[in-house]
Amino acid sequence: MSKDQNTFMQRAIALADQGMQEGTGGPFGAVIVKNGEIIAEASNQVTSTNDPTAHAEIAAIRLACDKLGSFQLDDCILYTSCEPCPMCLGAIYWSRFKQVFYAATQEDAAAIGFDDQFIYDELEKPMKNRKIPFEQTERDQAVDIFKKWDAKSDRVDY
Amino acid sequence: MSKDQNTFMQRAIALADQGMQEGTGGPFGAVIVKNGEIIAEASNQVTSTNDPTAHAEIAAIRLACDKLGSFQLDDCILYTSCEPCPMCLGAIYWSRFKQVFYAATQEDAAAIGFDDQFIYDELEKPMKNRKIPFEQTERDQAVDIFKKWDAKSDRVDY
Repeated sequence: MSKDQNTFMQRAIALADQGMQEGTGGPFGAVIVKNGEIIAEASNQVTSTNDPTAHAEIAAIRLACDKLGSFQLDDCILYTSCEPCPMCLGAIYWSRFKQVFYAATQEDAAAIGFDDQFIYDELEKPMKNRKIPFEQTERDQAVDIFKKWDAKSDRVDY
Repeated sequence: MSKDQNTFMQRAIALADQGMQEGTGGPFGAVIVKNGEIIAEASNQVTSTNDPTAHAEIAAIRLACDKLGSFQLDDCILYTSCEPCPMCLGAIYWSRFKQVFYAATQEDAAAIGFDDQFIYDELEKPMKNRKIPFEQTERDQAVDIFKKWDAKSDRVDY
């Protein structure tokens, strides 16, 4: 890690502390860097905004994309104060980051009550064995719409 | 599936079609039901809002939580026109849905270019073998903030 990289992570951790102190949400922060400059930063906002998806990483991704006017962050680096949960990991892949730095681990988060591992475990289970039951219906109708998408000449791929 | 359940899924699929036709985003729709009534619905909005996290499920979750003034949807059922990607699956668990219905499969989505399976595969890989490199730094500093959270008397758990 270069000195700059340490500084960016320290900022992510400071945001985690600040958000927690101010009651914004859990003790998590994230910073997004492009060309050596911070373009977006956020702390967890779940409880203050009533949005279970407002983890620090996702809040920062939304801000960065809004700033860049793009739904891709392929030249960007994410600094997050904790190893991403499955939701945020998915968001990181959809955003197509260049690189990710994280500080605390899943196990560290679990030790203070944030059980990401439970979700990782659920992902690996067959649907019928999951704690939240998943059931399939109306597949053919949905696939018909997919075929229309596939044939759509002016679609915007992502 | 009862008649009502079919109706809810058909609505999710109609939203997928509508969003695609109107250029809102990909061919995906989601509906959230509580006590037998739709409380939120959305189609994919990634490309129209420059938000890579604006999948139909997450957009609907945000709307439902806003409407209920809660970051939990534990009495709610999600109807989504396609099997959720890892990001949305994570969001479903954090929202604590009671049940999920889906229509098209991951494989159906992959056939029209939405490769959720790639992300599922990445999740299972050790960090160093992932396509997006993940690197750890500054763990001790981040864990110090976690300890402050653990000791915080007025924290709002989620």
